[in-house]
Amino acid sequence: MILGKVKGEIYSTINHPFYDGKRLLVVDRISPDGQSTGKYVIAIDSVDSGVGDTVLIIDEGNSARQIVDDISAPLRSIIIGIVDEVNV
Amino acid sequence: MILGKVKGEIYSTINHPFYDGKRLLVVDRISPDGQSTGKYVIAIDSVDSGVGDTVLIIDEGNSARQIVDDISAPLRSIIIGIVDEVNV
Amino acid sequence: MILGKVKGEIYSTINHPFYDGKRLLVVDRISPDGQSTGKYVIAIDSVDSGVGDTVLIIDEGNSARQIVDDISAPLRSIIIGIVDEVNV
Amino acid sequence: MILGKVKGEIYSTINHPFYDGKRLLVVDRISPDGQSTGKYVIAIDSVDSGVGDTVLIIDEGNSARQIVDDISAPLRSIIIGIVDEVNV
Amino acid sequence: MILGKVKGEIYSTINHPFYDGKRLLVVDRISPDGQSTGKYVIAIDSVDSGVGDTVLIIDEGNSARQIVDDISAPLRSIIIGIVDEVNV
Repeated sequence: MILGKVKGEIYSTINHPFYDGKRLLVVDRISPDGQSTGKYVIAIDSVDSGVGDTVLIIDEGNSARQIVDDISAPLRSIIIGIVDEVNV
Repeated sequence: MILGKVKGEIYSTINHPFYDGKRLLVVDRISPDGQSTGKYVIAIDSVDSGVGDTVLIIDEGNSARQIVDDISAPLRSIIIGIVDEVNV
Repeated sequence: MILGKVKGEIYSTINHPFYDGKRLLVVDRISPDGQSTGKYVIAIDSVDSGVGDTVLIIDEGNSARQIVDDISAPLRSIIIGIVDEVNV
Repeated sequence: MILGKVKGEIYSTINHPFYDGKRLLVVDRISPDGQSTGKYVIAIDSVDSGVGDTVLIIDEGNSARQIVDDISAPLRSIIIGIVDEVNV
Repeated sequence: MILGKVKGEIYSTINHPFYDGKRLLVVDRISPDGQSTGKYVIAIDSVDSGVGDTVLIIDEGNSARQIVDDISAPLRSIIIGIVDEVNV
């Protein structure tokens, strides 16, 4: 799993019904000390996160499908936690 | 998931019947602000996208197979949305 | 599989019940000679590792789910060993 | 999926019977304009490709196993097409 | 699949019974011309390889589990061949 910071949202015309009504968040991948790595991921949310939140992301289809409880979801990246503190 | 911009198409002699009649698009991987990352992916389309479109790509076999509704498709990368706006 | 060094822990408000009571460790990815590669992973632990330990990490969902014996766990990265010696 | 150019072959003493009699090709990963990216992959062939051919590669186990029609094949990378033209 | 050169071994206190009695090899990832890429992988062996051998590695869980014939093995990286010659 990796850490990210929510930067915004994309708006997309998507055909697959799975994405109807789901927010697609732009998440910067960050290092444990909070610096941007220059990489990002587009993820859906499962914890009501918002812009500026530090989040825990899992980037694996089977995990993401378990969380949304839909084994047929075309999905790979999902936010699974809001990070309160990184203690290194 | 990641963002891309459709740049063109490849024409290929392919033996596996799954690819008969399917467009194989060359998609630049871009950052949320629209800059090319220097990486690309060859993807099939599921949303009638065309050259110049900003698109959402999923790069995972099981997701791609769900979208084409063919569990035996030899497939990993698929365009799942046309992006109207990136708001960061 | 890859080598890492445990650097600390993150504290996260997580909705999925799988993570209740589980430690989420910050692990630097290191080279075989012990140098940091500048990359990290957030992993759960299965071997009672602690800060400063050199560990063996597996970063694959199906493996991680086997170790926690929960096929529905949303999980990708897990520490599977404490490394006593690297002999190269 | 990605583009490659076939550079040669490796000869290997392999224990798993799946690889008996199969060619293992060295394939440079190339950009859409035909430049080497400095990366490569060792792939088996499914389209009778040869040295110098520009090819389409899929690097995912389940796809590769579908193409060889053997769900127990220890296999990840396979050439699925010979590219006639890249139009960007 | 990728090429590697066996550099040594790690010794690890591992809890999962799958790893009892198995060698964990440190393998440098190399280019087809034999140069180190600066990356490595920790892999188990299935072909009696030793330090200095050029080997073929597969880095995918399902393939690795097929080779060890244990669908519940927490395993991703395995050496599947000793390379006699690279002809590019």
